[in-house]
Amino acid sequence: MHVLKCPRCGVELDLLAKHHLCPRCGEPLLLKVELRVPERGELKSLVPEGLKLVTLGEGRTPTIEFGSYVFKLEFLNPTGSFKDRGASLSVSRALKLGFKVVIEDSSGNAGISTAAYSARAGLKARVYVPRDAPQGKLRLIKAFGAEVITAETRDEAHRRAVSDSSGFYVGHVVDPFFIEGVKDISLELYSLRKDLEAIVVPVASGTLFLGLLKGFEELLELGLVDSVPTLIPVEACGYSKLRGYLKPVYLECAESEKSLLADALRLTVVPRLRQIAEGAARAKAPYAVIVGDRAIGEALKELYSLGLPVEPSSAATYAAAKYVAKDLGTRVVVPLTGSGLKYVPVPSELLDRYLFGT
Amino acid sequence: MHVLKCPRCGVELDLLAKHHLCPRCGEPLLLKVELRVPERGELKSLVPEGLKLVTLGEGRTPTIEFGSYVFKLEFLNPTGSFKDRGASLSVSRALKLGFKVVIEDSSGNAGISTAAYSARAGLKARVYVPRDAPQGKLRLIKAFGAEVITAETRDEAHRRAVSDSSGFYVGHVVDPFFIEGVKDISLELYSLRKDLEAIVVPVASGTLFLGLLKGFEELLELGLVDSVPTLIPVEACGYSKLRGYLKPVYLECAESEKSLLADALRLTVVPRLRQIAEGAARAKAPYAVIVGDRAIGEALKELYSLGLPVEPSSAATYAAAKYVAKDLGTRVVVPLTGSGLKYVPVPSELLDRYLFGT
Repeated sequence: MHVLKCPRCGVELDLLAKHHLCPRCGEPLLLKVELRVPERGELKSLVPEGLKLVTLGEGRTPTIEFGSYVFKLEFLNPTGSFKDRGASLSVSRALKLGFKVVIEDSSGNAGISTAAYSARAGLKARVYVPRDAPQGKLRLIKAFGAEVITAETRDEAHRRAVSDSSGFYVGHVVDPFFIEGVKDISLELYSLRKDLEAIVVPVASGTLFLGLLKGFEELLELGLVDSVPTLIPVEACGYSKLRGYLKPVYLECAESEKSLLADALRLTVVPRLRQIAEGAARAKAPYAVIVGDRAIGEALKELYSLGLPVEPSSAATYAAAKYVAKDLGTRVVVPLTGSGLKYVPVPSELLDRYLFGT
Repeated sequence: MHVLKCPRCGVELDLLAKHHLCPRCGEPLLLKVELRVPERGELKSLVPEGLKLVTLGEGRTPTIEFGSYVFKLEFLNPTGSFKDRGASLSVSRALKLGFKVVIEDSSGNAGISTAAYSARAGLKARVYVPRDAPQGKLRLIKAFGAEVITAETRDEAHRRAVSDSSGFYVGHVVDPFFIEGVKDISLELYSLRKDLEAIVVPVASGTLFLGLLKGFEELLELGLVDSVPTLIPVEACGYSKLRGYLKPVYLECAESEKSLLADALRLTVVPRLRQIAEGAARAKAPYAVIVGDRAIGEALKELYSLGLPVEPSSAATYAAAKYVAKDLGTRVVVPLTGSGLKYVPVPSELLDRYLFGT
């Protein structure tokens, strides 16, 4: 039987309990699923029985290889980011639980995903965003019919969302179903090739990191892989939460810099930080790579010169991948998490400096 | 042996001849490929031997069902439109032929695709665009490192591109390899389900229409389908080229209106018009649907309310699909050809009127 389980104190709850956090110790929960060896062509994540999946065709994104890099094109999910994978299951749960309104906080992409999947499900979405979120992303959230409420900072948006009791909070930073949806990426990577050695993973609230780790640990438990790949966290300069847990490797990141380009990575309240830090140890991460805007901007220009229209935060991951490929001498999997189509059409002094040299 | 063949007078040329047009009668050429029954999981279009495929992971786009509609999410191709399928093969040929510069004319999407695939291939791209092309699309073309040259109109852009002899013209409006790349959509639809009855197809230069038709006619020749689905052309109000050949069905399209919303469908010079008109007869098109901005705007809002972030031109197709589903009483396949992520982030009075009611 599938249950919600606290990864810290072990409490188990009914799968469809309305909790994100452990009622005993407060730790964000995860799903504990009954594992079975996936059959060929059936590597899609579990959809708990009785849960009607709200889908827009997320997942099964393309992979392309270039030199030492295996790019997983997560920006080709339906609304342009990997967050669609998580929102699909989060919103499915809210629908199953009978809620009419869902609430999320986001710097952009997760809000767009929540708005789109809520629209698909016929639910109303309310999204709390920081004042400095990219305006183009806010317009997309609204286009899907969601209500946008502006808070002073990213963290303030989070605090206001969790205290809004007028609907079901589907916040990706804590929702266990969100991580379960993201988990599929590891199953797709597994079905692709078995000699994955290192994966660089952008970390803000850690859903991608924990989703990948959960997927590979389940594949290990099933005996389908011999080991979990090395997962190397990537953070934005000025927003590192992991440097107290892992050796930091700085790429063009000055002490005083706070990244402007990597808007999707500028979170400081991270409820799953403990899980990420412990997970990084289990995934043998030798360090966390912390990337400044100059390195991000150069990597962004390089990705466009390869024909890959990604968002700046994804370029931080590629900048880290270049370091890791050289340092470890292995092939590196690079999830390109967000679409540049949400950015480049909008004139931007900051972005144009790097993309067009103006 | 695969060859280039004139569908009008039958002339055959070497597959890697540099022609787009028949040297005898001027008709745009098509590929004539040696057909063989595709094996399971091997429905990808032919890549002629010796041709290294320039790829960004195009194709194999998701399909989702909603009521009477089967949406094929072509806007989830790498740069956000189905044009990526064609550009992949067009640019592959230019690379094989040894050119360093490729030339294209486009209202936006094909230019973005050409720019991205050229970047991937290490070629320089020059794209001629009309003055009123969406500025966001032009920024994307430039972001991939291509040169953008502005002409007064869409048709003037075409004329200037074909007379630019400083590189290889890969214009999607005539390039036979482009159609061959687009053909894959029909193979993917075939592998999905065999009871496809009607497909609505937006028509500007006709590459999608001719690609779908070519694919299904080849499947018919192979005995894999019993008939070609009914292909129903969709055009933008004020830009119909087919109303002289097919019964026109007007959806909120006044005599004097020229669509502003459907920017991807505003082409009037259509070198393959004869092929499209003859193809529409073979595909039993009962009429062409010609859609005005009010119907496009309403369909656009409806698609966003379903969680589908498409561009306005794709909403014309959905507006037509609603008419066809009711008229024919069948399920309708709706290719959603372009991404709204290139539009919605940019403030636009025209678009906002429909999306936000402002």
